[in-house]
Amino acid sequence: MKKSLSLLALPAVLLATALPALAQVPVANRAITQAEVLAAQQGWCQALLDIGSAHAQGGQPAAKALAEKVIDTAYGYQLGPVLFKPTLTVAPQTFRTTRAGALSYFVGGDPAFPKDEGFALKGWTRCEISNSALFIAGDSASTQGNVSFTGKDGKVTTVDKTWGYVKDDAGRLRIVVHHSSLVNTPR
Amino acid sequence: MKKSLSLLALPAVLLATALPALAQVPVANRAITQAEVLAAQQGWCQALLDIGSAHAQGGQPAAKALAEKVIDTAYGYQLGPVLFKPTLTVAPQTFRTTRAGALSYFVGGDPAFPKDEGFALKGWTRCEISNSALFIAGDSASTQGNVSFTGKDGKVTTVDKTWGYVKDDAGRLRIVVHHSSLVNTPR
Amino acid sequence: MKKSLSLLALPAVLLATALPALAQVPVANRAITQAEVLAAQQGWCQALLDIGSAHAQGGQPAAKALAEKVIDTAYGYQLGPVLFKPTLTVAPQTFRTTRAGALSYFVGGDPAFPKDEGFALKGWTRCEISNSALFIAGDSASTQGNVSFTGKDGKVTTVDKTWGYVKDDAGRLRIVVHHSSLVNTPR
Amino acid sequence: MKKSLSLLALPAVLLATALPALAQVPVANRAITQAEVLAAQQGWCQALLDIGSAHAQGGQPAAKALAEKVIDTAYGYQLGPVLFKPTLTVAPQTFRTTRAGALSYFVGGDPAFPKDEGFALKGWTRCEISNSALFIAGDSASTQGNVSFTGKDGKVTTVDKTWGYVKDDAGRLRIVVHHSSLVNTPR
Repeated sequence: MKKSLSLLALPAVLLATALPALAQVPVANRAITQAEVLAAQQGWCQALLDIGSAHAQGGQPAAKALAEKVIDTAYGYQLGPVLFKPTLTVAPQTFRTTRAGALSYFVGGDPAFPKDEGFALKGWTRCEISNSALFIAGDSASTQGNVSFTGKDGKVTTVDKTWGYVKDDAGRLRIVVHHSSLVNTPR
Repeated sequence: MKKSLSLLALPAVLLATALPALAQVPVANRAITQAEVLAAQQGWCQALLDIGSAHAQGGQPAAKALAEKVIDTAYGYQLGPVLFKPTLTVAPQTFRTTRAGALSYFVGGDPAFPKDEGFALKGWTRCEISNSALFIAGDSASTQGNVSFTGKDGKVTTVDKTWGYVKDDAGRLRIVVHHSSLVNTPR
Repeated sequence: MKKSLSLLALPAVLLATALPALAQVPVANRAITQAEVLAAQQGWCQALLDIGSAHAQGGQPAAKALAEKVIDTAYGYQLGPVLFKPTLTVAPQTFRTTRAGALSYFVGGDPAFPKDEGFALKGWTRCEISNSALFIAGDSASTQGNVSFTGKDGKVTTVDKTWGYVKDDAGRLRIVVHHSSLVNTPR
Repeated sequence: MKKSLSLLALPAVLLATALPALAQVPVANRAITQAEVLAAQQGWCQALLDIGSAHAQGGQPAAKALAEKVIDTAYGYQLGPVLFKPTLTVAPQTFRTTRAGALSYFVGGDPAFPKDEGFALKGWTRCEISNSALFIAGDSASTQGNVSFTGKDGKVTTVDKTWGYVKDDAGRLRIVVHHSSLVNTPR
C-alpha cells in the first residue's frame, strides 16, 4: 500500500526517465518556464542598449523606429492596458498604460508627454539584472530585483524593478506589469 | 538594430547558458511541466493496481482505506466539485462530482450508489497509458488518449480518457476533470 | 483589531458597493466568467444546428464552409493540438488533434478520414445542454454534463460531454479539450 | 448561417438571461474578479490602519500580533517567496521575500532588520487607493496606481504601488508581488 503513495511522491525527474518517449505526442504549452523569464529579462536589457546604439547611429528617428518594434514585441499593449510605472516619470503622467506613453518614455519627442527625455537615449553602455525572487503563477510570471545601468561616464544607476509577464497565444512572453523606482537612499 | 530583435528570438535554452546562476534566487513555481503531468498519470495507474492489491490482501476495507488516501491525494475534491465521468457509471449517477461518488466507483460498497461494483477491485494486473496529446494551460493541464487495463485473464479493456489537472497550493497536481469512456466500436 | 479581520472576510459584493467607481480605470481581464462558459456552450449547439441548416440549403459545400468558420472561431487549433475525442470516431482515428480531423468529423467528405459521415449533417433539430458541474481555473475552464441531440424523427441521442476552454488574446473562449461519448447503458 | 456567427458574438450578459438556471450546478471558481481585487486592496488599507490602532492601544506587542495575522491572511508567504519591495527599505535589505522581513517592515523590533522603524506604527489616519489600471490574468491579477497615507499631522505621503495577487486553494486573494516607491519628484 505504501508503494502507491511513495510512488505518487517520487520526484518527477526520476519518474520521467522511466516513462515512454513522448516524441510523437503533440503538446501545447502555455506555462512559463524560468528560462523563458530570464531570457525575457535579458532581451529587455539588450533592447535598451540597442535603442541607444540606433540613436547614436541614426538619431531619434532611428531610435524611435526600433523602440516601436521593441514595444510591440516585448510589451502587452495589444492585450489591454499595461501597468507601467517607469523610473523617472512624474505626476500626472506617472503611469504609462498606453503604447504612446511607453514609446515617449523610451525615446521622448512626444509633445503629449513634455517631460520625457528619452530614457533609452541616455547612452547606457551596460544593463545588468540581479533578481531577488521569481514567482511563476502558470501562464503569468513576476520578477523583482535590481537593474543597474552604466552610463557613458561609467556612473551606475541602480533601480528596484518589478516585471510581470503573460504568455501570449503565440507563445511569447509579454510585459504587462513594470514598476521601476530609484533605489531608496538612507536620509 | 537587428541584434536586439534576433536576441529576443533566441531559444531560451541557449540564452540560459549565458545567464548568471540562479542558485540563490528563491522561485515560486505554480506552472505545470510535462514531466509532472506524465508522473501524475503514472501515479493514477499505479494507485489503481495498488488498490487491487490491497483488496486481494485485506479485502474491501483495506481497498477502501487506500482508495480514500488516493482520492484525497490525487483528486481535487477539496477544491470544489470534480468533473468525473467514470467509464462504467450509468444515469442518473453518471457524474461523480463528490468524493463519496468517486470512492464508491473505485471500491463499491456504498448503498447510495447501488450499481457500483468497484472498478479498482476487478483484479487489474496492468494499466498502460498512450497519450494522444497534451495541453498545458499554465497552472492547469489536460491530457487525452487511451488507457488499457489488463485483467487477470489477460483480456485488455481500452478506454478513451481525458484528465484535467490543476496544481494546488502545495505544488501537487490534482485531477479536477476526468472523463473515461469505453472505446467506440464500429457497428 | 477584529475590525480588520472581519473586513478582510466581508463578501466582495458588499465591499464593492462602498468602493469608488472604477469607470475610468482601464482593466484587462483574461479571467473566464461563468456567463462566458455558458454562452460558449450555447454557441456550440447553435453552430451545430446552423451547419445542418446550411447543409439542407446548400449541400455539403455550404456546410463545410460554415463548419470551417465555426472551427476557426470556436476551437483552439491555432494554439496547438486540440484534445478532441468526438462521439462516434473509431480507432485508429479516434482523436482529432488537427483542424482537418475536426472538420471531417463534422461534415465528412475527407478521404483521409474514410469512416466520417458528418455528425453535423445528420439533420439535428435540437441541441440541449445539461451541465453536471463547472470548473473555472482562471483563464481556462471545464464543463461536464449531458448534451442531447434531437433528430428529424424526434429520436433523442444523449452523450456525456466534457469541454475545456481557454481564453485567447482577443478575449474569446476557445475549445481546447472536447471529450464526447455515448451514454453507457446498463447491460 | 449568419445566425450562428452572430450568436457566437452575442454579449454574454444577454445570453445569460436566456439560459437555464444554474442554481443546482456546482461550480468551482478559481478566476479572480474585479470586485475581489478591489476588496483585497481595501482590506490592505484597513489592516494598516488597524495595526496602528492596535499599537496605540496595546503597544508594539499588540501591533505585532495583529500584523502577523494580517500577513498570514493577506500575503502569500505560505506559497513561496513573496516579491515585496516596501516603500522605505534600503539595501542590502530592500527586498522582503520572507515573512520575517515583511513583519519587521510593518512593526519593527527585529534586530535582524535594524533599520526598520515599523511603517504601520507611524500613526496613519487614512489610507486611500487610486488605481491607474488593473490586469486580471485569470487566477492571478495585478494593480498599479497611487496609495496616499495621511499622518496624524494631516500630512499626506503618496506612493506608487503595484500589487500582484494569486487566489489560493481556499479562494482567498494573496499578495505575492508588492512594489511600493515614493513618488518621483521633479528635480
